[in-house]
Amino acid sequence: MSGSKYENRKLDRALGTDSAIGADWRWVSPGEKPLALTGLPWFRQDGAYRRLPVRPAYPLRPEVDRLANFPTGVQIRLRTDSPKLAVRVELAGPSGAYTMTPAVQCGVDCYLGGPGEQRYVSTSRFDPEASAYESLLFENKGDGMKDITLYLPLYQGVKDIAIGVAPSAELHRFPAFADSRKVIIYGTSIVHGAAASRPGMAYPNMLSRRIPLEFVSLAFSGNARGEKELALLAAEIDHPGLLVLDYEGNVLSFESLVETLPAFIRTYRQAWPEVPILVLSQIRMAKEAFDPELRRERERRLALQRNIVERFRLAGDANVHFQSGKDLLGDDYEECSADSVHPSDLGYRRMSDALLPVFERLLGL
Amino acid sequence: MSGSKYENRKLDRALGTDSAIGADWRWVSPGEKPLALTGLPWFRQDGAYRRLPVRPAYPLRPEVDRLANFPTGVQIRLRTDSPKLAVRVELAGPSGAYTMTPAVQCGVDCYLGGPGEQRYVSTSRFDPEASAYESLLFENKGDGMKDITLYLPLYQGVKDIAIGVAPSAELHRFPAFADSRKVIIYGTSIVHGAAASRPGMAYPNMLSRRIPLEFVSLAFSGNARGEKELALLAAEIDHPGLLVLDYEGNVLSFESLVETLPAFIRTYRQAWPEVPILVLSQIRMAKEAFDPELRRERERRLALQRNIVERFRLAGDANVHFQSGKDLLGDDYEECSADSVHPSDLGYRRMSDALLPVFERLLGL
Repeated sequence: MSGSKYENRKLDRALGTDSAIGADWRWVSPGEKPLALTGLPWFRQDGAYRRLPVRPAYPLRPEVDRLANFPTGVQIRLRTDSPKLAVRVELAGPSGAYTMTPAVQCGVDCYLGGPGEQRYVSTSRFDPEASAYESLLFENKGDGMKDITLYLPLYQGVKDIAIGVAPSAELHRFPAFADSRKVIIYGTSIVHGAAASRPGMAYPNMLSRRIPLEFVSLAFSGNARGEKELALLAAEIDHPGLLVLDYEGNVLSFESLVETLPAFIRTYRQAWPEVPILVLSQIRMAKEAFDPELRRERERRLALQRNIVERFRLAGDANVHFQSGKDLLGDDYEECSADSVHPSDLGYRRMSDALLPVFERLLGL
Repeated sequence: MSGSKYENRKLDRALGTDSAIGADWRWVSPGEKPLALTGLPWFRQDGAYRRLPVRPAYPLRPEVDRLANFPTGVQIRLRTDSPKLAVRVELAGPSGAYTMTPAVQCGVDCYLGGPGEQRYVSTSRFDPEASAYESLLFENKGDGMKDITLYLPLYQGVKDIAIGVAPSAELHRFPAFADSRKVIIYGTSIVHGAAASRPGMAYPNMLSRRIPLEFVSLAFSGNARGEKELALLAAEIDHPGLLVLDYEGNVLSFESLVETLPAFIRTYRQAWPEVPILVLSQIRMAKEAFDPELRRERERRLALQRNIVERFRLAGDANVHFQSGKDLLGDDYEECSADSVHPSDLGYRRMSDALLPVFERLLGL
């Protein structure tokens, strides 16, 4: 059997996947009350696990249109006395990325605990070549009430998902958010969570466990170019508490940032004159350590974004803010990367630690 | 193309893999001087990328025999003025694990810099379904002398590997180690590096960048059971500076630890009466957070290992040491895990930070 594709699963059972989870389940849909489904502003309208409208009023590039089907940042929250929990997922396709685990692309992460106290329990386990799976998230946890947060897959479409509980289990609402405001983050693959080890480790998901508000991830891996259509769609999201623009890494040129950033802010401002907007410049990518040209270009873009924000503030808009991404990862920033571009969990955790006080201040928490 | 297996690579080029790297290369073997190949004590004898002898004098369980072909901890070190570097790898099979990236299973990590100053540059990029690949690690880095460290794949056999440099490049020895002593670590999938994002992030590999000695990883994912044969093979490795026993997680029972740990130490002691031995108890696995029984069992095993070490010390062997793994990951230990069992880069980095002063003290550094 030497050389078999799944050899390491045979050699170490702890690396294996779930077999069939058996019967004796009641399956509920995340759209059903009292479950809460967050991060999908258009779900009530469209009924789809999609982060933009199914038929947006503005034309989208095909890449953005497709990436909107990857439910990064989307969470299912519930309270239940079920001693066990499972998930049944129908994906648009299997996993297969090079620097990503099947788990982060197509898996569901399960946390237990109330707001701000969520602790990681497990990730769904499945055949990496499967497009549909059932997986046990926990069992034998007793009949006490449990607050549950589930994170949906970051890099694959979800056609359908159901949550399995014991047939007699009660379902209740997860404890409410601090208020109705939403934290909206528009950005690149780094917002999207590329190269995190599992869905809960995307940095917006990490922050959502530390800030008791709904988060909406408008991350479009490789394709966050600051298009006006996205500003218009972001402006459709009600109860905004903070809009973060972390899209520098995807612009095609310096000039494109010159053009899109002020326009994006102005477009959003027409709908929401007061909502805090945070412009976040790019983190240091590992590959800049040995590339002075790349470093200079990042510094140049950093200064540009700082200046753009300063101009808004001088013009009287005190609610536009700038945060440099330069030092978020620390001096050994290249060690925080999984692939010389994207952070691993180590890097995302450092981003989350550094951004938490910034977000809290802008949200008045 | 919606739902295509490699959709995310099409949507975001930064997630893609290498195409052909072209001609104009000189290919050298890691076994050729002046390259240094570390972590393979039997390479000079057998000529194979295998961490145990091809024909060991003691019978091995088939799982251990096969896992010895996964070259975790193995490094190639060289100094060259080549402005570019590539790798050509022939694997025993493709990747395919569920909680692991193809990169960590089958990839090669490249670091630049002298001992103690190595900085991550890149990981080889390849089709996750490929069993052989060529990949560019860097280019256009100038003609200056560069110290290069390459880490071999953690979870797949390597039948052959060659390093590509510019045809006219000079090859020299990487700067020497502080001395000839080796740090030998025997252990589980956590020593093996399961769920790290890339090869350089296994904790022995991290520590090898901070301690200027050769490291030998005797990690056997799921199969480090403290067998006498492994103690005998570990004792065959010359110039030991420190032997670490981090295998608690793989024993089948408490009784098996009672039986194997003193025997392993005594067997090793017959060959090496003075070499420091560090017994490291298990880190807290994420799944113990909601499982008091698991926590109690880990605490019981911790006390056992501490007691066994204490008995050796009372009997006059002051060079047997104990380190609790309990607090290595911190209070939010579950967040350090990729899959509820194995650490992600976040967890491995915390292990490395906590173990560095312990290793340094025992090595007298």
